[in-house]
Amino acid sequence: MKTGISASMMCADFMDMRKDIRAMEEAGIEYLHFDIMDGSFVPNYALGVCMIEQVRRETDLPLDIHLMVERPDLKTGYFPFRKGDTVSVHAESTVHLQRLLQFLKREGIHPGVAMNPATPVEVLEYVLDVADFVLVMTVNPGFAGQAIVEEMLRKIGNVRSYLNERGHRDTVIQVDGNVSFENARKMKAAGAGNFVAGSAGLFRTDMTIPEAAKKLREAIR
Amino acid sequence: MKTGISASMMCADFMDMRKDIRAMEEAGIEYLHFDIMDGSFVPNYALGVCMIEQVRRETDLPLDIHLMVERPDLKTGYFPFRKGDTVSVHAESTVHLQRLLQFLKREGIHPGVAMNPATPVEVLEYVLDVADFVLVMTVNPGFAGQAIVEEMLRKIGNVRSYLNERGHRDTVIQVDGNVSFENARKMKAAGAGNFVAGSAGLFRTDMTIPEAAKKLREAIR
Amino acid sequence: MKTGISASMMCADFMDMRKDIRAMEEAGIEYLHFDIMDGSFVPNYALGVCMIEQVRRETDLPLDIHLMVERPDLKTGYFPFRKGDTVSVHAESTVHLQRLLQFLKREGIHPGVAMNPATPVEVLEYVLDVADFVLVMTVNPGFAGQAIVEEMLRKIGNVRSYLNERGHRDTVIQVDGNVSFENARKMKAAGAGNFVAGSAGLFRTDMTIPEAAKKLREAIR
Amino acid sequence: MKTGISASMMCADFMDMRKDIRAMEEAGIEYLHFDIMDGSFVPNYALGVCMIEQVRRETDLPLDIHLMVERPDLKTGYFPFRKGDTVSVHAESTVHLQRLLQFLKREGIHPGVAMNPATPVEVLEYVLDVADFVLVMTVNPGFAGQAIVEEMLRKIGNVRSYLNERGHRDTVIQVDGNVSFENARKMKAAGAGNFVAGSAGLFRTDMTIPEAAKKLREAIR
Amino acid sequence: MKTGISASMMCADFMDMRKDIRAMEEAGIEYLHFDIMDGSFVPNYALGVCMIEQVRRETDLPLDIHLMVERPDLKTGYFPFRKGDTVSVHAESTVHLQRLLQFLKREGIHPGVAMNPATPVEVLEYVLDVADFVLVMTVNPGFAGQAIVEEMLRKIGNVRSYLNERGHRDTVIQVDGNVSFENARKMKAAGAGNFVAGSAGLFRTDMTIPEAAKKLREAIR
Amino acid sequence: MKTGISASMMCADFMDMRKDIRAMEEAGIEYLHFDIMDGSFVPNYALGVCMIEQVRRETDLPLDIHLMVERPDLKTGYFPFRKGDTVSVHAESTVHLQRLLQFLKREGIHPGVAMNPATPVEVLEYVLDVADFVLVMTVNPGFAGQAIVEEMLRKIGNVRSYLNERGHRDTVIQVDGNVSFENARKMKAAGAGNFVAGSAGLFRTDMTIPEAAKKLREAIR
Repeated sequence: MKTGISASMMCADFMDMRKDIRAMEEAGIEYLHFDIMDGSFVPNYALGVCMIEQVRRETDLPLDIHLMVERPDLKTGYFPFRKGDTVSVHAESTVHLQRLLQFLKREGIHPGVAMNPATPVEVLEYVLDVADFVLVMTVNPGFAGQAIVEEMLRKIGNVRSYLNERGHRDTVIQVDGNVSFENARKMKAAGAGNFVAGSAGLFRTDMTIPEAAKKLREAIR
Repeated sequence: MKTGISASMMCADFMDMRKDIRAMEEAGIEYLHFDIMDGSFVPNYALGVCMIEQVRRETDLPLDIHLMVERPDLKTGYFPFRKGDTVSVHAESTVHLQRLLQFLKREGIHPGVAMNPATPVEVLEYVLDVADFVLVMTVNPGFAGQAIVEEMLRKIGNVRSYLNERGHRDTVIQVDGNVSFENARKMKAAGAGNFVAGSAGLFRTDMTIPEAAKKLREAIR
Repeated sequence: MKTGISASMMCADFMDMRKDIRAMEEAGIEYLHFDIMDGSFVPNYALGVCMIEQVRRETDLPLDIHLMVERPDLKTGYFPFRKGDTVSVHAESTVHLQRLLQFLKREGIHPGVAMNPATPVEVLEYVLDVADFVLVMTVNPGFAGQAIVEEMLRKIGNVRSYLNERGHRDTVIQVDGNVSFENARKMKAAGAGNFVAGSAGLFRTDMTIPEAAKKLREAIR
Repeated sequence: MKTGISASMMCADFMDMRKDIRAMEEAGIEYLHFDIMDGSFVPNYALGVCMIEQVRRETDLPLDIHLMVERPDLKTGYFPFRKGDTVSVHAESTVHLQRLLQFLKREGIHPGVAMNPATPVEVLEYVLDVADFVLVMTVNPGFAGQAIVEEMLRKIGNVRSYLNERGHRDTVIQVDGNVSFENARKMKAAGAGNFVAGSAGLFRTDMTIPEAAKKLREAIR
Repeated sequence: MKTGISASMMCADFMDMRKDIRAMEEAGIEYLHFDIMDGSFVPNYALGVCMIEQVRRETDLPLDIHLMVERPDLKTGYFPFRKGDTVSVHAESTVHLQRLLQFLKREGIHPGVAMNPATPVEVLEYVLDVADFVLVMTVNPGFAGQAIVEEMLRKIGNVRSYLNERGHRDTVIQVDGNVSFENARKMKAAGAGNFVAGSAGLFRTDMTIPEAAKKLREAIR
Repeated sequence: MKTGISASMMCADFMDMRKDIRAMEEAGIEYLHFDIMDGSFVPNYALGVCMIEQVRRETDLPLDIHLMVERPDLKTGYFPFRKGDTVSVHAESTVHLQRLLQFLKREGIHPGVAMNPATPVEVLEYVLDVADFVLVMTVNPGFAGQAIVEEMLRKIGNVRSYLNERGHRDTVIQVDGNVSFENARKMKAAGAGNFVAGSAGLFRTDMTIPEAAKKLREAIR
């Protein structure tokens, strides 16, 4: 997975998404981030397959799909994944985490392990070779606009150390949840490399997407 | 619930939704139809709460929300329902159908009972007074673009008779699934009153939305 | 199952239950009714096995246990059922309704089929010979103190006819939910024979239990 | 689906199955019946995919696979179905009964609707055109060697009438559960056409498979 | 959470609970402990909301509610929690442990993390700041009167060290299961601070509640 | 549990199982291994109770039953376990791991903890005294014939160290998945003691069962 910015599509302007996509291309955003929620693993419903398909036809930006669903191992066939996409699955959502990550990797997708705030780092021990990134949720998944769970800055550091000590310095830590300019700076310092940016870091009312992206990049340089 | 056309938002142009909404207003579409899918009750993920919220801010057209989810009785709080909206819930998705419909009705929402193709009409017997409409799925729910299940034309007729015999002539039958101009005509003849229109009946490549709406209205006159 | 009154223990005075039990014995109540709720089949938790055991040691009144739980067929071993008790299970809660009723009957228990308000009478067709009673829920299960679902008076009549037409005149209809003196009279007229009495019909603040029981018996005579 | 005998493989001699298969070929058995149980839809585990595969390599007899599993619509890919096989799925096990039957039919498989003892005949109303047979369980599914549920003889008759009245005289009724010579005779009289034969009707200790098959055929002539 | 004694209400005398509550007030019991069981997370049903409400009206003793239920994060609305209560939720019962604890804390409730015997201490790592106590189950949850799982004394010590090493010396360890006078002494020595007392430590046949409480306090001094 | 070979019955010749059992007796195989799959915990169905019963009647070899099912704690009654058998349950499949292992041990069965590839070793911490063996899955469970997950050799070593450091040198590590002669040698070196042998290590097309067993024994000497 590339370091940089992953734009949270939940926060885009659905009335004029083409314009937002153009702005993101212009700003050099690394990924378009799609939150898939099933109303059961998380108490909300968000984006769907139909939107992924339309966005795919509109842009060549790679997609970053975050599966907040129960038993994602049984549902890979529901998605039009493509080589070069990244896909994150929650460690808490399947007992077959290794199988699912391995499957994705063999398909040419960058697999990631997503972790809820309470989930301990030990779940990573035997999947490090099949995970290209770790998604540390810095809020509890399900909603945009929440305040950061403070302990998560410490957790980012712990995950970074855990990865480095096991020889996985290249495994990227992605963060998702209240990625403001200020929080992004702290997350970067703690070891994060890819930042899911939503209403606080990219889709802002006080500046354009390219302006926000520029400011966010400064924060995470 | 009003008779007429309910526009399937899954089939709208997500790159320029404002334009489609304007076209639907111009065409006098009765409802904007939102498919909520949980990847479990149906094998797909579609639209979410974030889109409902943005569309709500853009237009005064009433919303028609179709819950294809497990245990919708536990999830009413996830949605920003508003008086005048219609909300359909599947008879197969909860053992508390009466409670859920009654709850919605008391909130000022028009409740509907959605029925999968195989579901028998007997499930309606004791909820007729709390259901403003019945949604007869004319395809198996989960995907756009499927061929009609032929038996469903007979089923529409059966539901119509069942309602009429019990003094519920005003209860609208909504149909969803392959609502082409031709099928719409047959569905109307069988007793349907509200038509969920997608790629076959409204969002077409060979005519504009107002043109398609006009043609669909002729079919269901 | 005996006709008469089944006292809803949820509504008893938990601070002095012995006194209430004595009053119920004095009043000649036919059954003590226990609501078992699992927080999943219904959105509440009520009485448990520990209370059944203590009440059993205190009185010889037969127990009437209403299982509002998912998959009761897998949980019969959790309960200290005894010959002569009645046990009702929801038609909506297991796909093995015949097996469960048959099992209970062979144990010397009076089995009953409980039906949520929306559930159609057709579910009874092939279990009439293994059901001693039918519990028509006159409110949606889960809470005390709700208003009656009006359609349920018609349903009681329908169930009565259904049973009579099939030669099951002896199968008792039990009703549960807002059994006030006035409603009880209507329920009796519609065909009910056993009445689950709670805060409206038995545990009242304006009269004693024996007084309320007397008044309720007049209503259902 | 062909009328005749479907041999319950659960009851075969697993120590020398080749011999039993030869005997069944010699006896002209119509189908080899495989019970798939998931320990959840039914409280038992029976045969698996590995056995289906080995039997397939050994004989050309068509297979008759009975899915006693939850959500079979999500699991069709687990089985090496082949054109000409019959596959029965329980009406109680999926809310997408029409979709599943239609899918099987399009694959060239003979689809059947299996019904637990308590399940009413109304579930068949809108799937008659996609079901080649109806499996009336004459015992509660999950175990061999149970006594017949007496009401099921009446149910076979009701299903037969229901099918005939709707113009589906060719739809076969299969029966499964305590198919003894004597019961088979009654089942045939009631309207059954295909008989799942196990320890009572085919795999007996007092006669060979061909002898039992001969006797069973006499019973169902 | 306060150290001291939490009285297991499952073991109280349901025939004369008022007397037991008076005795517990007299004895200065710190909490009344309510076991909520759903028949799914644990194979039993215990106390319910109706009892919590009645006890609340009878006494000002704070309540200590132990949720042995699946997905407690979806069920907080079922309970009449009040500021000053303690509520424990099982780490094994939800993937949103941090969200649930944080929610409770913001409501003014003392949140606790309950752990089944096999659950490793690592689950606590990122919720220490939102947990006021840790409930170490010293028997497998679901039943009163079981023998202690011996390994749990070692576990109490491990949890105590884990908490202390991370600067959470004030986080109380509560123990539940076979809290006899003798076991309580060992549990105290290992690091426990709050003791759920039932039939072995408080509700005894050979002494009164105040006498037992006095003896238990000596054991845990 | 004994060290040595556990023969994967899924890979036996179902057409002539008696012959295979005789060969296994002759070869001195330590256990017959039965894979129980529920189509939900793993995406496959394998062997069932009916086969266990027939094999039991045919041989005195002890059985080794591997439960790949959800909630095995609720299903122990489905199996004809016998003293001296070994039974492994997945740490991921129940929240009551200690209770289940303790129950099995008290029945005279050798309990084992099975671990999916991603499952961390910490799950063993508090069940070491009630587990006679640990089953390290060296492939993802559900299918025969898969390639080994390479990280699992390291995991075997980790589990061995973990057990030894805690004084459990006698706890056997069982391995299951691609146990070829070559892999078996490496697994043995890493710390495994009991080897589930299937198509790669025992049921081969190029040698007899006794020949393969001899070769496998050389590899694991």
